[in-house]
Amino acid sequence: QSQSLNGYRKSCWYEEEIEENLRWCFALNSILHTGASQYQDIALLDTKPFGKALVIDGKLQSAEIDEFIYHECLVHPPLLHHPSPKNVFIMGGGEGSTARELLRHKTIDKVVMCDIDEEVVGFCKSYLVVNWEAFLDPRLEVIINDARGELEGKEESYDVIIGDLADPIEGGPCYKLYTKSFYEFTVKRRLKQGGIFVTQAGPAGIFSHTEVFSCIYNTLRQVFKYVVPYSAHIPSYADIWGWVMASDSPIELSAEELDVRMRERINEENRYLDGKTFSSASTLSKVVRKTLDNETNIYTEEAARFIHGHGKHA
Amino acid sequence: QSQSLNGYRKSCWYEEEIEENLRWCFALNSILHTGASQYQDIALLDTKPFGKALVIDGKLQSAEIDEFIYHECLVHPPLLHHPSPKNVFIMGGGEGSTARELLRHKTIDKVVMCDIDEEVVGFCKSYLVVNWEAFLDPRLEVIINDARGELEGKEESYDVIIGDLADPIEGGPCYKLYTKSFYEFTVKRRLKQGGIFVTQAGPAGIFSHTEVFSCIYNTLRQVFKYVVPYSAHIPSYADIWGWVMASDSPIELSAEELDVRMRERINEENRYLDGKTFSSASTLSKVVRKTLDNETNIYTEEAARFIHGHGKHA
Amino acid sequence: QSQSLNGYRKSCWYEEEIEENLRWCFALNSILHTGASQYQDIALLDTKPFGKALVIDGKLQSAEIDEFIYHECLVHPPLLHHPSPKNVFIMGGGEGSTARELLRHKTIDKVVMCDIDEEVVGFCKSYLVVNWEAFLDPRLEVIINDARGELEGKEESYDVIIGDLADPIEGGPCYKLYTKSFYEFTVKRRLKQGGIFVTQAGPAGIFSHTEVFSCIYNTLRQVFKYVVPYSAHIPSYADIWGWVMASDSPIELSAEELDVRMRERINEENRYLDGKTFSSASTLSKVVRKTLDNETNIYTEEAARFIHGHGKHA
Amino acid sequence: QSQSLNGYRKSCWYEEEIEENLRWCFALNSILHTGASQYQDIALLDTKPFGKALVIDGKLQSAEIDEFIYHECLVHPPLLHHPSPKNVFIMGGGEGSTARELLRHKTIDKVVMCDIDEEVVGFCKSYLVVNWEAFLDPRLEVIINDARGELEGKEESYDVIIGDLADPIEGGPCYKLYTKSFYEFTVKRRLKQGGIFVTQAGPAGIFSHTEVFSCIYNTLRQVFKYVVPYSAHIPSYADIWGWVMASDSPIELSAEELDVRMRERINEENRYLDGKTFSSASTLSKVVRKTLDNETNIYTEEAARFIHGHGKHA
Repeated sequence: QSQSLNGYRKSCWYEEEIEENLRWCFALNSILHTGASQYQDIALLDTKPFGKALVIDGKLQSAEIDEFIYHECLVHPPLLHHPSPKNVFIMGGGEGSTARELLRHKTIDKVVMCDIDEEVVGFCKSYLVVNWEAFLDPRLEVIINDARGELEGKEESYDVIIGDLADPIEGGPCYKLYTKSFYEFTVKRRLKQGGIFVTQAGPAGIFSHTEVFSCIYNTLRQVFKYVVPYSAHIPSYADIWGWVMASDSPIELSAEELDVRMRERINEENRYLDGKTFSSASTLSKVVRKTLDNETNIYTEEAARFIHGHGKHA
Repeated sequence: QSQSLNGYRKSCWYEEEIEENLRWCFALNSILHTGASQYQDIALLDTKPFGKALVIDGKLQSAEIDEFIYHECLVHPPLLHHPSPKNVFIMGGGEGSTARELLRHKTIDKVVMCDIDEEVVGFCKSYLVVNWEAFLDPRLEVIINDARGELEGKEESYDVIIGDLADPIEGGPCYKLYTKSFYEFTVKRRLKQGGIFVTQAGPAGIFSHTEVFSCIYNTLRQVFKYVVPYSAHIPSYADIWGWVMASDSPIELSAEELDVRMRERINEENRYLDGKTFSSASTLSKVVRKTLDNETNIYTEEAARFIHGHGKHA
Repeated sequence: QSQSLNGYRKSCWYEEEIEENLRWCFALNSILHTGASQYQDIALLDTKPFGKALVIDGKLQSAEIDEFIYHECLVHPPLLHHPSPKNVFIMGGGEGSTARELLRHKTIDKVVMCDIDEEVVGFCKSYLVVNWEAFLDPRLEVIINDARGELEGKEESYDVIIGDLADPIEGGPCYKLYTKSFYEFTVKRRLKQGGIFVTQAGPAGIFSHTEVFSCIYNTLRQVFKYVVPYSAHIPSYADIWGWVMASDSPIELSAEELDVRMRERINEENRYLDGKTFSSASTLSKVVRKTLDNETNIYTEEAARFIHGHGKHA
Repeated sequence: QSQSLNGYRKSCWYEEEIEENLRWCFALNSILHTGASQYQDIALLDTKPFGKALVIDGKLQSAEIDEFIYHECLVHPPLLHHPSPKNVFIMGGGEGSTARELLRHKTIDKVVMCDIDEEVVGFCKSYLVVNWEAFLDPRLEVIINDARGELEGKEESYDVIIGDLADPIEGGPCYKLYTKSFYEFTVKRRLKQGGIFVTQAGPAGIFSHTEVFSCIYNTLRQVFKYVVPYSAHIPSYADIWGWVMASDSPIELSAEELDVRMRERINEENRYLDGKTFSSASTLSKVVRKTLDNETNIYTEEAARFIHGHGKHA
């Protein structure tokens, strides 16, 4: 009986082209919700191997079972390295998980989440139960706007700015939010003294890190004095993922110091990140280190590099 | 926009193993309902190529777009060849489509549908909108019971008895409803004078007809004087399907006579079947005719032949 | 042991998109040969369900296990209906199977196969063992040329002309060989008195027959007095396939007459076709008959209809 | 033209069930060789994303493009931590890549590779061009035998013993080569003073490390004073992979010391491993560290834990 139960359920599959010649397929329990916005198509699937999965334009954005890895890695390293982060600006992040992680920090007074896609934000607000509390937190302000326009149009500055955006694909909607001039003339001016910028930085595997990771890193080191790349394996992405922190103040804490700050500042314990984990995550493997050291490409308004693959949504 | 819309929607697939080495895959819009009974698992899928699809234990039972072929072929040939069919007994048929086709016949007073699986009947009653009218027709009596027990336990006899059951798989739930002794001592005794028995008879393609079709045919010709096998292509099954009519009275009408009776007796026009279509359907191709002529296997209580493939549910 | 043997072998699959939302997948034993011509890519696969399979541009052309259905249906009906066919012109047919079937007819003196793609012909000549004998038959002349140019450039006329070409896709290489003007001014003029033209005519299933089958039929009946459409299920195509015969002389033999001619004229027995099989094949089902009767589209040099799906190669 | 070329080539896929509900699919160029031994089925595939891939019993063993990660991680850490490794015993390793990496060490006099499956060794010797030089190296002795029998039946002892075996699946062929008693009474007795044992240790991802990695670690720490687990992402496995080193002498070198020894002892530069890479690889993430610390299961002759997934061959 239970065998036949599995039998038919395994008949339905979600299939993603990681690359043109590589597919990653999850057995489905159900297709929970589907929708479309002006910009994107969106679906919430219930998958057998990874739980509920948010899919935008046919690309997995985050899966219930391991989205904590992505979001802890995006949020906690910059906040912990900052002496006392009070306000944060999220570019994108409409899913709500980035805000959720931020709001666990006791020092945080104000989180601005600025996502361009109202429907995606609404969809996630309605269906992602795990972020309901965050969406109701009075410290969170949700703005529907282009992140660039929002940052440039207002005077406020932030302790931490977070890029939770789709990868910089040439011609894609987010490319302009990864350029040298954007970092120099917009992001940097909206960071307070000692402020830290962090961005998701695409796949960072031994082969895939050349797609955008090395280039994001190289672009940021043209603009900021201190730049720290790090990475972690995300099972549902079938790859290592990368992030880059950048600041004009030193970013340097030992594993022990990070552990102390986590205990002091963060409500409840992290599931993925602790001091040693970050220490390992920020020690890249030989090939990746070399590519990053030698990278010469810079994202400018004029040029771009293409990525086919996982992209975080705007 | 519409391209990306298709993009993500094509990410979800229903996949069926027609045989161990052959798969048939439909893009999914959604998984509408899933359920499980004491006997079987059941799902209603919304597929792109074939519309709503009823799947039991991982096997496609019927698809919105072409189930009319299966059900017209199962129901109308025996009813039309009968001089004046008034009451009919359906073994299985819980989906409701067989009853629906029967109730289109003006001569029909009474339809007994006897299906063993209450949950499947309930599921179909709830979700298969196309059969709602049939389920509400006062001429239909639904009985939840084993068809054999039901036929043997009561005195009533019928103008037409219909086998709308899963294929006779050795050890399977329906095997006993395809045996010579069942036909001889149960079915035949419950047919009125001039009565006709019909059964679905599994795949009838040039290679697949040896699985059960020829054997069902051969078993029936041991018991009845007149036996008429016929077949039709069902796109969603990716194969030709077979049925066999059997009676002790001659089954012989020209295409023209069938057309006349259809016009006289059936409400609304058939979508698939007319006189010429039946004439073609009952003229089997050379290979199939030869296998049927030469078949020596008989389904008995003792022996069985295995089929892996499409099975109609009990 | 044998289980594990099956285990790994089932890991490799050939996958074909029948339509955008429908896939047909065969387990692979091996990829025997691959090649490319100026016009097309070509592969010979060893598949588990259908044996060796010829694939051109990602579309299955013919499978070892059931190509005899396609080729017997293409060749024998016109040859048998002709009183005494001596010479035949094949447009396309580079695979060699059409020639093979023709050369089984004792009346045949000369077969001209005119295919545009030298590499495909060479590939098939090398690898399709089943057609080696035909390729060596002195009655066969292989010409590498555009069929239209060849027919128009020479004076010779034929008892039978056969179209074994890819479907008439708008903008495709074969569209012009399905137009009214081509039939009228080229084909008809190269047919001898009493000559018969036949062409493969694309999918002819209950849904798929509207793609090109009905239109090919309607185009031919603008040009010829007698037109006979017929169809057969080809398992490896997952569909019914269609052919159309056309002539200015009546095409009318009973099943018995066909059987007699087969015995007299054809070496060895047919595997698929006999008189009754053709009788069934040429009695189309209601829906298809109606579409054909009512079809108004005509293939002209100016207009075309698109088909996505199986296409026979030029 | 090149588009259509890709078109048909993408029609053939290798498909692996990573878990029951998770598939990993590679587009195929060709199926190069297939074979079967007394124990296993074996195939060499040419895949588009990962190059030539060795598949045993339907499980990917190693892919041309990234097998260097697995084999560098298996071989170099123990050899580098050993003061002067001269002779090494490989349990399994029939592919030849482990021997290849060992033979790059200038200190090595003798490598014994003991694999039970003569056909697999022969297959790899014939087809894996990258290991031809290693198979011809006079320092390599290949023995076809059960590794346990071989170690117990001879007197020789080794500087390093390497377990390059399939995962310890209950009832599987290699389970006994992962038990406490095997480590205690066989492996340890065949290690010279200061000797180091290393074994591949199955998947080590944030979810998958509980399958066998933690248990192999815990079994080894019952037997050896110093035990070092480490891990690395292998793209073709779609997961992090683990290894465990064990010794009764301390295993402790800084990243700098490792880099010095690599330069001194290893011919040509490593592609994956350097000092910092190992430092990161041996700093496990929080969840994995905790599971390993708290693991209580021990592989004994009596008990086992099941793994479904990637398994290295014996």
